[in-house]
Amino acid sequence: VADTPPTGEFGLIAWIRARSQASAQVLVGIGDDCAVLRPTSGRSLLVTTDMLMDGRHFRLDRDGPEAVGAKALGVNLSDIAAMAGEPWAAVVATALPKRSAVAVAQGLHAGMRPMAERFGVDLVGGDTNAWDGPLVVSVTVLGEAGEGGPALRSGAKAGDAIVVTGPLGGSLLGRHLRPEPRIAEALALRRLAPVHALIDVSDGLASDLGHILDESGGLGAVLDADAIPIHADAFTLSAADGRPALDHALQDGEDFELCAVLAVDDSERVGQALPFIHRVGTIVAAPGLWLRDPDGSVTPLTARGFDHLRAETGDA
Amino acid sequence: VADTPPTGEFGLIAWIRARSQASAQVLVGIGDDCAVLRPTSGRSLLVTTDMLMDGRHFRLDRDGPEAVGAKALGVNLSDIAAMAGEPWAAVVATALPKRSAVAVAQGLHAGMRPMAERFGVDLVGGDTNAWDGPLVVSVTVLGEAGEGGPALRSGAKAGDAIVVTGPLGGSLLGRHLRPEPRIAEALALRRLAPVHALIDVSDGLASDLGHILDESGGLGAVLDADAIPIHADAFTLSAADGRPALDHALQDGEDFELCAVLAVDDSERVGQALPFIHRVGTIVAAPGLWLRDPDGSVTPLTARGFDHLRAETGDA
Repeated sequence: VADTPPTGEFGLIAWIRARSQASAQVLVGIGDDCAVLRPTSGRSLLVTTDMLMDGRHFRLDRDGPEAVGAKALGVNLSDIAAMAGEPWAAVVATALPKRSAVAVAQGLHAGMRPMAERFGVDLVGGDTNAWDGPLVVSVTVLGEAGEGGPALRSGAKAGDAIVVTGPLGGSLLGRHLRPEPRIAEALALRRLAPVHALIDVSDGLASDLGHILDESGGLGAVLDADAIPIHADAFTLSAADGRPALDHALQDGEDFELCAVLAVDDSERVGQALPFIHRVGTIVAAPGLWLRDPDGSVTPLTARGFDHLRAETGDA
Repeated sequence: VADTPPTGEFGLIAWIRARSQASAQVLVGIGDDCAVLRPTSGRSLLVTTDMLMDGRHFRLDRDGPEAVGAKALGVNLSDIAAMAGEPWAAVVATALPKRSAVAVAQGLHAGMRPMAERFGVDLVGGDTNAWDGPLVVSVTVLGEAGEGGPALRSGAKAGDAIVVTGPLGGSLLGRHLRPEPRIAEALALRRLAPVHALIDVSDGLASDLGHILDESGGLGAVLDADAIPIHADAFTLSAADGRPALDHALQDGEDFELCAVLAVDDSERVGQALPFIHRVGTIVAAPGLWLRDPDGSVTPLTARGFDHLRAETGDA
């Protein structure tokens, strides 16, 4: 494998292909019309896709292509974690800025590869384009459901406990570029107890918990203000912008921790066994979302997660 | 299902979800962190991805979002055809121009849906974004290998016949926006004979046949000039630009016909049974690509297919 930069689209594809190692489940990797994979008999297949755009999810000039590659793969792996699944293979489609297309593609690959290796993901194919526009990276990840099947958003029940896998808020200070997909954490959780509902915190805890409540038939939740684990970055950001750190923990997106719903007994047992588990609240029958202060007072909590289309169009 | 336009990202997702019908193989469709699919036991899984960008693969202002949707799904289905596979499910990631995000998303969906229904593809998930940039659509299609496994690019042998499934050239006049994935044609071919190599004509016959030659270990091919089926559009384009119609048929991309390599005996039998099959040449042991004129003279043929990175950067 030479160190000279590859030339042209097919040179670049050959460069990437030379750096691809495929597991036994990959029958055909990069270089044909499709990748060919051998699914594990009896397991469900998981599919997720996420697109990142320059100026929206990252800034290429500030963050560099390696960070973009790591983020593009990481956010997809986080969706696999949110199903308690095991990632398997990824395909990567790119619109590269034409003046630096090859260097950007190599940087993306350099950012993806360590994460792919760490999480056992084969890079099995893609589509390489260049244009006058900003960098766009679209990754699709395939995974397989772990033992016991996938963990959905839809199984929460009134009285269940709500837990998260780590401290939240302030990801904008840099963590949003370095997602740590909670694959192992989800599998550990799933081994210890039935997971009634599971989601990753990409839009903010309040928003993402809201998705669980909606998908579980219109339930509600009470979050305990003093139980929310707040990340140090949320305090730093709070000092700068004056918003309470708790507000950052509840509303900021791109933490990529998991939010799980379990039976209360199970949550206690799991909390003993897995030190990263924090119970943050309780599912209730009445639709809505509330915050309970240490003095016992309960106030409604509005999710302010990012809505791409409302944010853009000003739709009410 | 109401006719009022949906509001916001989650309104749009609900609008699309209400229009999704999932087959029994889709355990969870739109609305969770991943789609969950049940693979057919024993079959190989096919994965392909293609990204289309405004100004590069289409012009939104001229072609409209429905044509873009149909093309975005169709080019991916063509890759499934090129493996002699059966398409199964698709995920769609979009960067929508913010001023018309919802209308464009609805148009894309309207263009994809009839093609998805025709080819038995479930739209199982996606990612919806809006930005200041031009429309980008990235589709990933999953399929399953047909009986007998996938047809690769790599099995051509010296002495084999080269066939195509239809007339070539001039797709720029509009056919490039309306790919007709040759799924049924590939399956019919595969049922009748072992297919040594298969590819779809997306970069141009000369280029795509070149991929087969490369992947088959460095073989060559002789194409018979008077045997190449030339599309009427290639003649029309020839009259306008002065390039020979045959040149369009050999070099134009985005025809989305298939190019297959078969044993000669099989190609004759298949040609009798399947009227759309045209034998266009022969695989030879010496690496290279040649055109044989009716008088028997043979001249080297250079593939001029589109290279995204060379075209953009001016790399030699």
